[in-house]
Amino acid sequence: MTLELDTVAQDLLFREARTANTFTDEPVTDEQVQAIYDLVKFGPTAMNAQPLRIVLVRTPEGRRRLVDQMSEGNKAKTASAPLTAILAVDNEFHEELPTQFPHFPGAKDVFSERPVREAVASMNGSLQAAYFIIGIRAAGLAAGPMAGYDAEGINKEFFGDGEHSVLAVVNIGKPGEDAWYPRGPRLAYDEVVTTV
Amino acid sequence: MTLELDTVAQDLLFREARTANTFTDEPVTDEQVQAIYDLVKFGPTAMNAQPLRIVLVRTPEGRRRLVDQMSEGNKAKTASAPLTAILAVDNEFHEELPTQFPHFPGAKDVFSERPVREAVASMNGSLQAAYFIIGIRAAGLAAGPMAGYDAEGINKEFFGDGEHSVLAVVNIGKPGEDAWYPRGPRLAYDEVVTTV
Repeated sequence: MTLELDTVAQDLLFREARTANTFTDEPVTDEQVQAIYDLVKFGPTAMNAQPLRIVLVRTPEGRRRLVDQMSEGNKAKTASAPLTAILAVDNEFHEELPTQFPHFPGAKDVFSERPVREAVASMNGSLQAAYFIIGIRAAGLAAGPMAGYDAEGINKEFFGDGEHSVLAVVNIGKPGEDAWYPRGPRLAYDEVVTTV
Repeated sequence: MTLELDTVAQDLLFREARTANTFTDEPVTDEQVQAIYDLVKFGPTAMNAQPLRIVLVRTPEGRRRLVDQMSEGNKAKTASAPLTAILAVDNEFHEELPTQFPHFPGAKDVFSERPVREAVASMNGSLQAAYFIIGIRAAGLAAGPMAGYDAEGINKEFFGDGEHSVLAVVNIGKPGEDAWYPRGPRLAYDEVVTTV
């Protein structure tokens, strides 16, 4: 065995896990989301920045407001998933660095310029989004991350403070009938990895 | 148990895994890196985009060139880690979409503008970087991701084609003496997750 992680866990998180497009009616509870967060919050980021924010869309009104912003092909599954989470970044994350990265008192000032903050928030928020997707799978659930939506519309409708940028919208639940398409190809090792 | 992933795997990937700053001399083999890639390549991205590129720095000359680009506090550990990987994105990733996302023939054209491509490459490459870090831990190794370096310098020195952007540099190996600092705090669930 080259990997230390057992093959059951490998399959659960990567090999057999798939992006789901349909779900059963089984609810996803707040306890499950909390367990996911309490695991994946430990994933590493640069300077312990934690820009990720998660909006759980549970009410019919919230669902309607979100579906309105989704692109046509994503509306039906977003309307019917047991739970949908909006993953966004708080571009003012640097305000938390004095408490989250206390041994470097100047950390906050590194990000005094908004364009720098936005790039760093997007990068670290994307790392955190990936950990969260892995966490959904760790809970025995399927994730259906989507990028097709009106980003400005979601930012305005769900945050409205000009400080948050949506990263992805993720349906969450147990996979339903015909939940996924055939798996797409992947680049070969030699196409991705080189040695110097 | 709220999570399906067993607690040994939870600890290996998240709870006990830490960002390492020192390493033992034990080598990290190409077989290990290949096993990591062959697991984490299945992590989901938008439109199956796979911008991540990995440069394994193995030769003394490659190591010297990389250490030259690292910020002062990262030089010593980058010089002594068993293996260091440069994680970058290929901003021309859209050229691969006809083979990697064949059921949407127009996919490549969505990314005809370079600024759009760069943002999408950074976002999906960061997702893939997070999967790769999880994969390093799945191999029973410690990852030491670093953001302190001259990014333009690395882009020029290791790619030089104007098409690649470094995302992170990651030391890889078995943790050595005093490998990590005390774990930093994390935001509480209620600071990150809201419900609508």
